[in-house]
Amino acid sequence: MTSIEHPATTIEARSSRTSVLTGTRELGWETREVPAPGPHEVRVRVRRIGVCGSDVHYYTHGRIGSFVVEAPLVLGHEVMGVVEALGENVTRLSVGDRVALEPGYPCRRCTYCKRGEYNLCPEMTFMATPPVDGALAEYVIWPDDFAFPLPDSISDDAGALLEPLAVGVWAARKGAVTPGDSVAVFGAGPIGCTTIQAAKAAGATTIIAVDLEDFRLDLARKVGATHSLNARHQDVLAVIRELTRRDLPPSHAGVDVAFETAGSLPTTRMTLAAPRPGGRAVLVGLPPDPEVSLDIVSAASREVTLRGVFRYANCYPAAIDLVASGAVDLDLLITHRYAFDQTPEAFAFADLEKKTSMKVMIEVG
Amino acid sequence: MTSIEHPATTIEARSSRTSVLTGTRELGWETREVPAPGPHEVRVRVRRIGVCGSDVHYYTHGRIGSFVVEAPLVLGHEVMGVVEALGENVTRLSVGDRVALEPGYPCRRCTYCKRGEYNLCPEMTFMATPPVDGALAEYVIWPDDFAFPLPDSISDDAGALLEPLAVGVWAARKGAVTPGDSVAVFGAGPIGCTTIQAAKAAGATTIIAVDLEDFRLDLARKVGATHSLNARHQDVLAVIRELTRRDLPPSHAGVDVAFETAGSLPTTRMTLAAPRPGGRAVLVGLPPDPEVSLDIVSAASREVTLRGVFRYANCYPAAIDLVASGAVDLDLLITHRYAFDQTPEAFAFADLEKKTSMKVMIEVG
Amino acid sequence: MTSIEHPATTIEARSSRTSVLTGTRELGWETREVPAPGPHEVRVRVRRIGVCGSDVHYYTHGRIGSFVVEAPLVLGHEVMGVVEALGENVTRLSVGDRVALEPGYPCRRCTYCKRGEYNLCPEMTFMATPPVDGALAEYVIWPDDFAFPLPDSISDDAGALLEPLAVGVWAARKGAVTPGDSVAVFGAGPIGCTTIQAAKAAGATTIIAVDLEDFRLDLARKVGATHSLNARHQDVLAVIRELTRRDLPPSHAGVDVAFETAGSLPTTRMTLAAPRPGGRAVLVGLPPDPEVSLDIVSAASREVTLRGVFRYANCYPAAIDLVASGAVDLDLLITHRYAFDQTPEAFAFADLEKKTSMKVMIEVG
Amino acid sequence: MTSIEHPATTIEARSSRTSVLTGTRELGWETREVPAPGPHEVRVRVRRIGVCGSDVHYYTHGRIGSFVVEAPLVLGHEVMGVVEALGENVTRLSVGDRVALEPGYPCRRCTYCKRGEYNLCPEMTFMATPPVDGALAEYVIWPDDFAFPLPDSISDDAGALLEPLAVGVWAARKGAVTPGDSVAVFGAGPIGCTTIQAAKAAGATTIIAVDLEDFRLDLARKVGATHSLNARHQDVLAVIRELTRRDLPPSHAGVDVAFETAGSLPTTRMTLAAPRPGGRAVLVGLPPDPEVSLDIVSAASREVTLRGVFRYANCYPAAIDLVASGAVDLDLLITHRYAFDQTPEAFAFADLEKKTSMKVMIEVG
Repeated sequence: MTSIEHPATTIEARSSRTSVLTGTRELGWETREVPAPGPHEVRVRVRRIGVCGSDVHYYTHGRIGSFVVEAPLVLGHEVMGVVEALGENVTRLSVGDRVALEPGYPCRRCTYCKRGEYNLCPEMTFMATPPVDGALAEYVIWPDDFAFPLPDSISDDAGALLEPLAVGVWAARKGAVTPGDSVAVFGAGPIGCTTIQAAKAAGATTIIAVDLEDFRLDLARKVGATHSLNARHQDVLAVIRELTRRDLPPSHAGVDVAFETAGSLPTTRMTLAAPRPGGRAVLVGLPPDPEVSLDIVSAASREVTLRGVFRYANCYPAAIDLVASGAVDLDLLITHRYAFDQTPEAFAFADLEKKTSMKVMIEVG
Repeated sequence: MTSIEHPATTIEARSSRTSVLTGTRELGWETREVPAPGPHEVRVRVRRIGVCGSDVHYYTHGRIGSFVVEAPLVLGHEVMGVVEALGENVTRLSVGDRVALEPGYPCRRCTYCKRGEYNLCPEMTFMATPPVDGALAEYVIWPDDFAFPLPDSISDDAGALLEPLAVGVWAARKGAVTPGDSVAVFGAGPIGCTTIQAAKAAGATTIIAVDLEDFRLDLARKVGATHSLNARHQDVLAVIRELTRRDLPPSHAGVDVAFETAGSLPTTRMTLAAPRPGGRAVLVGLPPDPEVSLDIVSAASREVTLRGVFRYANCYPAAIDLVASGAVDLDLLITHRYAFDQTPEAFAFADLEKKTSMKVMIEVG
Repeated sequence: MTSIEHPATTIEARSSRTSVLTGTRELGWETREVPAPGPHEVRVRVRRIGVCGSDVHYYTHGRIGSFVVEAPLVLGHEVMGVVEALGENVTRLSVGDRVALEPGYPCRRCTYCKRGEYNLCPEMTFMATPPVDGALAEYVIWPDDFAFPLPDSISDDAGALLEPLAVGVWAARKGAVTPGDSVAVFGAGPIGCTTIQAAKAAGATTIIAVDLEDFRLDLARKVGATHSLNARHQDVLAVIRELTRRDLPPSHAGVDVAFETAGSLPTTRMTLAAPRPGGRAVLVGLPPDPEVSLDIVSAASREVTLRGVFRYANCYPAAIDLVASGAVDLDLLITHRYAFDQTPEAFAFADLEKKTSMKVMIEVG
Repeated sequence: MTSIEHPATTIEARSSRTSVLTGTRELGWETREVPAPGPHEVRVRVRRIGVCGSDVHYYTHGRIGSFVVEAPLVLGHEVMGVVEALGENVTRLSVGDRVALEPGYPCRRCTYCKRGEYNLCPEMTFMATPPVDGALAEYVIWPDDFAFPLPDSISDDAGALLEPLAVGVWAARKGAVTPGDSVAVFGAGPIGCTTIQAAKAAGATTIIAVDLEDFRLDLARKVGATHSLNARHQDVLAVIRELTRRDLPPSHAGVDVAFETAGSLPTTRMTLAAPRPGGRAVLVGLPPDPEVSLDIVSAASREVTLRGVFRYANCYPAAIDLVASGAVDLDLLITHRYAFDQTPEAFAFADLEKKTSMKVMIEVG
């Protein structure tokens, strides 16, 4: 009698080896029991976990804003795996499906959910955000409609990296990038790179990457930037204005859309200054302090629209199609790779070394 | 032989008594010659000029930001008059038409103009903005397509006040106000009131006016506010959250759209804090200093969209229809009235007395 | 021990007297058992049911398109009642709350639901649409998040009529009505009238109602139409062009938005012809035959956008606010009233008499 | 003394050899005088003219709808050339600039122009549309702001073909194509191909081309179609539904956007049927008869938005950037090439041979 014949009744719980953050820069191991999936749920055998900046931030600081690690927390929310068991009423997936997990699911009933803005749902369950555990484990249970089957053309690694690509797709939507647009992306880390990829997929023809590290800028060009500027050596805003002048006076030069992905105050300020009158500025990253001094007067009087990004909604299907079609290549982003057993080493590396690394991938299964 | 028969050749120039700003708080008189209108132009006999805060600012400070009064300047850009002569090729107007003048016209040829964003045109000619003269005079020449005929149901006074209403209409468009929305309007001066009127016309059902003066708040309620808060005595953000909670947690309460019209730092900060997640914040006014300290992190992580307003584009036809249909009553805003000869007294009054005045109207002709 | 203390365990099922459609123009009575509400559900004691054209269509023809009555069907989907019992996890409602029921709820899990387009969900459960029963009964069970509490300022009758108002609000959104717009509404029945009300609330200043019956046109003017045209006696398109010409040539006259609510071929054709170039045409009603001959060439080459309406999504909150604020008066629409026992008479009347009736209301409890 | 020193006064008129349509399938030659350019105008030495289907239609039928050839007409509106003389006030161009001409310019003063919808301007001057002459001549005069300088990376041929690409860009905008969208393009002629190219540039990942000729379908795949269907041999709608099903029932399959570019009734009908619920249908082509029988009921009840395309507005800058960046390759479309002297042969060929030709290019200078 197989699990396929009676999926809801005969599948047993699984012991799941789990990486647990127990203190600042302390990652230990636990064995946890993962139960049979409930209605509309699947159990997934995890294969790949990408290490995200927010994972590293919890590892290093024990908190992000008001989210504080107060008990052992499982990190990891860039997740790819294989469906191993189905709960009741699961019809869109089969055992054996390779899937990417969208790492948050909402209440489905509030005003935000009903409007399709589920990323703003006040009862969101989001992986690796205290007190919700992430997926650095052998098994996880997840709702079937937030598990997306992967076509063969998408690698396991890329499946995990659909998560940062979803951020980029959301950022490009918020910025309303359309064919022929010019964009500037401040910060060329993983989110900067997926934002570049999403903006290019949306038709941006001038894509200016800005960072402090040539290693990252080189990768930014590989994934689609048409220009790269090292802010240590170049007057970034002057170059941006020169690249976007056409036949307008300098006061009216500027990109159609600027994206902040570095999370620093200087880049936030440049993101407000870079767009042309009527352009858009999108904050994907956030400055480290809640109160920041900005030239909001200049941005507002140029009618620049400023938008924030909080995760994403309804972006996984587009992200999958972009990778499957070849429009976006996520495998380019992976610079380092660790086995599941080396998870502590992976975090120690990601914490220290940012000049020569882009994305660190953990091979769980 | 009348000017109607041969409009372009026989109409003569007119001497035009003109009020001129010659120094800080110095208004004098000149007689200027206003020529015959050129192709696509009309000459208008001015009847009403509303005194705007920006006029008073030039009167008091001699500058607004980078616009500096360096030579005698004619103030006045809230203009209603009567068409007195037609240039060549004018077909949409007739001599004798009562008209409101939209006080700025663009180059018509740049990228912004072609896209319909003519308020952002780098070559805008805008009344009473150095070095362009305003309309505090007996006669002005203006392009026919920026002179809008008024139906009988719109008073002369209201014709002049279409200008601040156009600002309110533009603000409501930028805020994407739709039926059932809740809005907060910070500042209940003339622009705050026209923003309230435009938001109400767009279907806002909860309209919260915030000011420091009860006189202004009373008028705000007369023109459509459903609630008024005096920020001297009330915890504005707490009340706004209570009024907009529905069945959501406090973190997700807030108005759909907040408008800043007071031009102060505290109201700018409240405008960013007042919207619900996913809501909109519109800066109609601007804080007095270019660099301001804002909690942009909280606004961005709630995905609040922040937009600035620079004048308006394509708003006069809607403003006219709203007044003609009775949806908006602009006459309610006029609290004080001066004859053309009393223009210096009108400005002296407007400069000093804001607690008991809303809109000061000058009867030119 | 009351039901409030242990809502899920102690509330018993209720016998519910129920009106049942058993054949063409045959309405009988059954007593059905309505169980205790499940998780996230409430049981509602029905008070008011408005009779909708689609109810009458099932009564008369036994089908609407592909939806065929094959077993006894309960009609009624314009529903107001009082919460009588709560299932588990219900927090947004209390026993005793007066509520309007949004009559359809979706699967909450498909692509459409996640995007907020739940009206297009393939697994919609919609009242009085075979095989789903409606609410012409003493009791119904319904999900708590599709039951909206009513403020005291909304009457029981108006609570039931939020349903047709939701259609009007959706139509106005599809037509993107904004302040100053001119609209034409073809058909001045209940949906025509709520479309007029929603368009007015959204800022339309010229509202042209078109019908064949003066009784309906009179009511249309009461609820907000600024002009009414009887298509028996007037050249509708010629008048519309005259009313909307401004300074444009006749080829460029037309309303900003035209709405079809009559469900006839001639009005569908006029709805395509009435908008100005670049305007919108919204089909709220549908012509009776699937294949219709239309001048699509003219509409497309004028870049008129044509949109259909299928029920609505996320419109109840706005509809409630519009009625509560006084912007919309739904009570004006009720012309006839029947007790629950007279339900067969109510349908017989609604079937036959349309020239002197607008909305028929059944007082269930 | 050169034209550069005194551009407005010393440049003389030019004799311009001109191809003239004098009757059905009759093309003759005239020598016309092209004057010095006026203010804001340039004189352009024509280099390339692409032959458009509308040119051929005038050649063959003498009319398109209400536009009737009543006097000798110069054809040609896909135009690339070199600026040869400047009128007064021309600052954005220099003598010697390679330019593409956007072939229509508007009045700049009406409501449509001010809103940025200049393609709907009632006083549009559009080349090769009676009574306005086209550009099949040695010289033309044109407003400088509708002449776009070409970077070196765009070939002369591609410069002329920016015109059909502008149509494709406009169609993609009307269809609101975004990354990850699936689209179907009915008709794989030049406009079908540029629509495919624009949709791909906007991020469409599934692009289904439909035609009756394998030659055209092969080219469609070269320019970006991911699937091609020959409607002679395949059940087009069934295949489209299969390709777009994902986990939805067949009733909810369909493309996000369907484009009609063939101008036939069967493809118009398929364009309405192909989109998913909530999708978009864009009519770039138009059926040959004004009255057509359509299943509008099904489209409207699925909430498919139907939009027409009339030329384009503000698309040349994006089209130029797409070609310059390499996102679109227009040179692939040219299958046949004629010298200016062979213009009659070029039209005779284009009239007769559509199975093996895509775009015919005339080398004027």
